[in-house]
Amino acid sequence: MLAAVLHGMNQEISLEERPSLIPAPDHTVVSVQFAAMNHRDLWIQKGQYAGLKYPIILGSDGMGTVEGKQVIILPGMDWGDHEAYQSRTYRILGLPDDGTFAEEVLVPTENLFPKPDHLSDEEAAALPLAGLTAYRATFVKAQVQPGESVLITGIGGGVATLAMQMALAAGANVYVTSGSSEKIEQAMRMGAQGGVNYQDESWPQALKKMSGGIHKIVDGAAGRSLGLAIECLLPGGIAVNYGGTTGPIEIIPQRLFWNQVTLKGTTMGSKSDFAAMLAFVGKHKIHPVIAGVFPLDKINEAFAFLKSTAQFGKVVLAIPSL
Amino acid sequence: MLAAVLHGMNQEISLEERPSLIPAPDHTVVSVQFAAMNHRDLWIQKGQYAGLKYPIILGSDGMGTVEGKQVIILPGMDWGDHEAYQSRTYRILGLPDDGTFAEEVLVPTENLFPKPDHLSDEEAAALPLAGLTAYRATFVKAQVQPGESVLITGIGGGVATLAMQMALAAGANVYVTSGSSEKIEQAMRMGAQGGVNYQDESWPQALKKMSGGIHKIVDGAAGRSLGLAIECLLPGGIAVNYGGTTGPIEIIPQRLFWNQVTLKGTTMGSKSDFAAMLAFVGKHKIHPVIAGVFPLDKINEAFAFLKSTAQFGKVVLAIPSL
Repeated sequence: MLAAVLHGMNQEISLEERPSLIPAPDHTVVSVQFAAMNHRDLWIQKGQYAGLKYPIILGSDGMGTVEGKQVIILPGMDWGDHEAYQSRTYRILGLPDDGTFAEEVLVPTENLFPKPDHLSDEEAAALPLAGLTAYRATFVKAQVQPGESVLITGIGGGVATLAMQMALAAGANVYVTSGSSEKIEQAMRMGAQGGVNYQDESWPQALKKMSGGIHKIVDGAAGRSLGLAIECLLPGGIAVNYGGTTGPIEIIPQRLFWNQVTLKGTTMGSKSDFAAMLAFVGKHKIHPVIAGVFPLDKINEAFAFLKSTAQFGKVVLAIPSL
Repeated sequence: MLAAVLHGMNQEISLEERPSLIPAPDHTVVSVQFAAMNHRDLWIQKGQYAGLKYPIILGSDGMGTVEGKQVIILPGMDWGDHEAYQSRTYRILGLPDDGTFAEEVLVPTENLFPKPDHLSDEEAAALPLAGLTAYRATFVKAQVQPGESVLITGIGGGVATLAMQMALAAGANVYVTSGSSEKIEQAMRMGAQGGVNYQDESWPQALKKMSGGIHKIVDGAAGRSLGLAIECLLPGGIAVNYGGTTGPIEIIPQRLFWNQVTLKGTTMGSKSDFAAMLAFVGKHKIHPVIAGVFPLDKINEAFAFLKSTAQFGKVVLAIPSL
């Protein structure tokens, strides 16, 4: 089987022929049709991720076939017994276990779910990790309710875009931030009420004015900008953070305690979060936005595209059929 | 009536004779016996508080008599309809309304509660604002449970000391931080399992080692030290912040999101928090620690003592009886 293999830090991915995978007890070999990329793959390539090992076949997201039936893969394994947090042995497909950037992937059979009917194959591959993270952030943690004003930062990212779609489906008023006016416009075409460009230093004032105050935040950027977003929260507001692109979170404490604000960290999600996400996405016919589809042999171009942050939505890899 | 009056920013307090107070509808004049100081009084004296006005009689905490019956005063007014956060008109006795550093204070009648039986007059005066803040932080927000490891930062402060006593009464294992080894020793004599001196840079490692990880944090310091304390939290842990002495909170986001950690801001508390606090303190016979009692005419010395942060517990003012 053909596989995209990373041999070391900061190296290009190379396509290699590997032996076909053998099923293990309680595990199933999936013939991958489409995979999708996550920033996690970039962090691992850059060597900035815990538990690095090489060689590794990256890829957390994928859909494919098992005995002719189409499936999508829950990428998280061993979440453990507590819904509130994952166990110490929790891991994501694509490190340390070989992932979906290959013609075949071996996964626990319990991680297979039927492909949602309303999605194309590409959309189904794009959904799992971003959808899971977005669902847990938006509903389990931020507890977004109809009519609330919800700020989604860094729109265009895979998690951010799905979080926006989910919050809109739940009846929330969504506001977005981005460094790109085009992305803000695209978000507004998708239903967002408004947005602010964080390259304009007065964005917090503009956001407060257009929204009348924010009830909930879903953020993957961290940094001082999360602290500024928190200053736009109404009393009792909740901010949820799922990523740290821009470094340490900095918050003026008086804004936090006087407004009785809560900041919740979240990552990935449990198996029951995944099932709830699939039910929600199916009920509301949410389609992940596909920024581009690259054939597997163009995987290094796909990495470069994801790195450029020019994309809006998910970057998908088409795995050649045998 | 004799009153301690602040006439402007950074001025000393002056004792003055004022006209006796006149009851207003739904309000009662309390003959104050003891008052207690809070850092809030210092911030107002320094001019670092919202809504400053002069002249003002400071003082949020007090106990005294109404028609011969002893009462303590809930210092918060107009909390509003939401338990989760106070209304925009919420205010604390001692700014903008004249406070307890006087022979008489006018308060809403619904803010009067019978003096707890198990407390001395001085202890009763020391309880209200610190007890309310500590109770909401420890139970409503941090949801401290028996057997949990709870970190209380800045031990010796009024809120911190009551939070420690409450967490101990609830069956938690309490760890403390301080810049003073004497305060850590005093906390351990009161029942804390251990403590670390934050002047030693390796305090987070030492704390992790002695505790095996922390479930809950009650913090009034903010700053980078709160971020370091958050790194000592077990997965799913909760940090609560009620003050900002050391400036902006700085958190490494990966520690927040990967550990599914929550940070909750809290300030003061509702009337039902106050009633629950009184019931808890009564049931567990908790006595606020008194660091010192000053007569009203030594109020400037009392301010200097509080400013020195040498004290462990509350600073109380004895109001001369007529």
